[in-house]
Amino acid sequence: MTTTTGLPAFEGPMCPLPLSHTERIVLGHGSGGRMTHDLIRTLFQAHLGNPYLEAGNDFARLPLGIEPYSEGHLILSTDSHVISPLFFPGGDIGRLAVCGTVNDVSMSGAIPLYLTAAFILEEGLSIETLERVVQSMRQAADEAGVSIVAGDTKVVEKGKGDSLFITTTGVGWLPSHYHLRGGEQARPGDVVLLSGPIGDHGIAVLSARGELGFEAEVKSDVAPLNHLIQAVLKAAPHTHVLRDPTRGGLATTLNEIAQQSQVGIRIEEAAIPVRPAVRAACEMLGLDPLYIANEGKVIVIVPPEEAEAALAVMRQHPYGAEAACIGIVEAQPASRVIMRTTLGTHRVVETLSGELLPRIC
Amino acid sequence: MTTTTGLPAFEGPMCPLPLSHTERIVLGHGSGGRMTHDLIRTLFQAHLGNPYLEAGNDFARLPLGIEPYSEGHLILSTDSHVISPLFFPGGDIGRLAVCGTVNDVSMSGAIPLYLTAAFILEEGLSIETLERVVQSMRQAADEAGVSIVAGDTKVVEKGKGDSLFITTTGVGWLPSHYHLRGGEQARPGDVVLLSGPIGDHGIAVLSARGELGFEAEVKSDVAPLNHLIQAVLKAAPHTHVLRDPTRGGLATTLNEIAQQSQVGIRIEEAAIPVRPAVRAACEMLGLDPLYIANEGKVIVIVPPEEAEAALAVMRQHPYGAEAACIGIVEAQPASRVIMRTTLGTHRVVETLSGELLPRIC
Repeated sequence: MTTTTGLPAFEGPMCPLPLSHTERIVLGHGSGGRMTHDLIRTLFQAHLGNPYLEAGNDFARLPLGIEPYSEGHLILSTDSHVISPLFFPGGDIGRLAVCGTVNDVSMSGAIPLYLTAAFILEEGLSIETLERVVQSMRQAADEAGVSIVAGDTKVVEKGKGDSLFITTTGVGWLPSHYHLRGGEQARPGDVVLLSGPIGDHGIAVLSARGELGFEAEVKSDVAPLNHLIQAVLKAAPHTHVLRDPTRGGLATTLNEIAQQSQVGIRIEEAAIPVRPAVRAACEMLGLDPLYIANEGKVIVIVPPEEAEAALAVMRQHPYGAEAACIGIVEAQPASRVIMRTTLGTHRVVETLSGELLPRIC
Repeated sequence: MTTTTGLPAFEGPMCPLPLSHTERIVLGHGSGGRMTHDLIRTLFQAHLGNPYLEAGNDFARLPLGIEPYSEGHLILSTDSHVISPLFFPGGDIGRLAVCGTVNDVSMSGAIPLYLTAAFILEEGLSIETLERVVQSMRQAADEAGVSIVAGDTKVVEKGKGDSLFITTTGVGWLPSHYHLRGGEQARPGDVVLLSGPIGDHGIAVLSARGELGFEAEVKSDVAPLNHLIQAVLKAAPHTHVLRDPTRGGLATTLNEIAQQSQVGIRIEEAAIPVRPAVRAACEMLGLDPLYIANEGKVIVIVPPEEAEAALAVMRQHPYGAEAACIGIVEAQPASRVIMRTTLGTHRVVETLSGELLPRIC
């Protein structure tokens, strides 16, 4: 390992190709040694670069204790992303990893500021694929206005992973004059708004997997919602709940809120926007769009006097152009979601109980 | 998906066993629906429970903006843990995931406060194994004095992962009267201290893999170093650098510091503590202990006038009982690590350039 000649010494079993001469990830990229440093410098820092990453320490120091973020609370959220395939209509795992965590932080009402990103790479992954994903992360982070300030790279042997998993953790700032918008804040009389059509993400991914048997012209809705949400909070400052209907879909997310708040939520099937192509794909496969994952939608639960203002501001935003009022909150039946169907009957909408679409995020 | 009878409706392909009736992870545990909730409630919350997790939102709200943490900086660090096997002498992936991130945050001089934990589970993983790992995380978190405040669970198909990967992200607080202890702070004249023997973690993991051909009586040193480090900073407040020699070992970490600070680091081979069993295993396998990963050791670089105090306080701590002074910092040769060997010759100690021991952390 050490040498008096300046020539490289024998260093045990190793993967000796420098990054510039290899097109695939090898175990050496996860060694913590020179190959890891080369990968960080030529790929991660090249695309994600900022002073926090360039400091070269195992941690990032962040100016959260100073103006304008000098009072309030810290918001923290984490998600692993294991979606398959890595690329799908409307997005890729990189955009998803940034938006998923930006959105989770934003649902508290907080302003997302910083992300960390940890990569688990499977040996044999092409460097070009990784680079496309990291570029996409940078674009999504720029759109959201967040910095990726710390990261990690591990490599596992071929067959012990699946190309690429990305875990992002987000830090946001909740000014002290903002109150929290958790799922326990829904109140009888509140109005339930939804920022747009459901099911796009799940159907786009199924289509990319070739599981539809036909090509659906559906793009994933994956998008950072923080700017939309800040606009909603400005127009409707007494908003009670913000939540994104991701895994488990709208049905599961509404059930979570009903249980956390101990209220009943009544929704109108006819009011819930679903694109015709998504509806057709669901009918073909026997799926219910209420349970299909979304990655760029938000449920907004507001007191009635602010509902119109919230809806108007959502519709002015590109990610909320098709926003709709889909229901109301009532005291009873507590912890339940009831839907009036297009046939006029009433049905209990249950939480997803099995697995509908594995690895959708 | 919905039902008017109260009976479960057909919900497409699913894994219908509730957690209490299954002993293995199935894809449904990653659905975001009822099985995910059951897993969170009966396993993660049962062991890691605290008010942040129990709030049931996708984010944690943390009192960082208030006393006693009302001024200073936030420190953020993340690591994915893919170690194989999951259990090894002296530790397991859970203890490693907590300690690894606690230590990375601590190396800034900060007080670690909060962790997030994201799990990627392979279908078929036994629930009992997962429970043992989560219990171990709780123990390590309690020892370190940190809370695990947010989490995530994803499940991948059998053969697309390897039992269990855990990504932890840590948040620490650096009071404003503390200065940062980054790798760029080493100064000529400084003394290089090491908190104890090197190579224990790597050799313990190799032994657990059965790759030694004999049973080495070596336990991993995996431990949270935050309390030790706070004691060092009290005794030696002008400490310049703190860094843990993990992947790539002592040699790689000292090279990182030498490059960041543009200084030469001279070390004495005879002064570097190595347990006889580690030395014997390394000789047998043709490995150099300088490149073997550690998970409970810290390099402390201090001005000479505080070196004795720092060493004394380390030796009083259980995780620093065998601390030693191993070298000094000089102006030249810049960016180089030079070792005087036990034979009296001088050798350049290089950065690890290939992969020595894959999946050691």
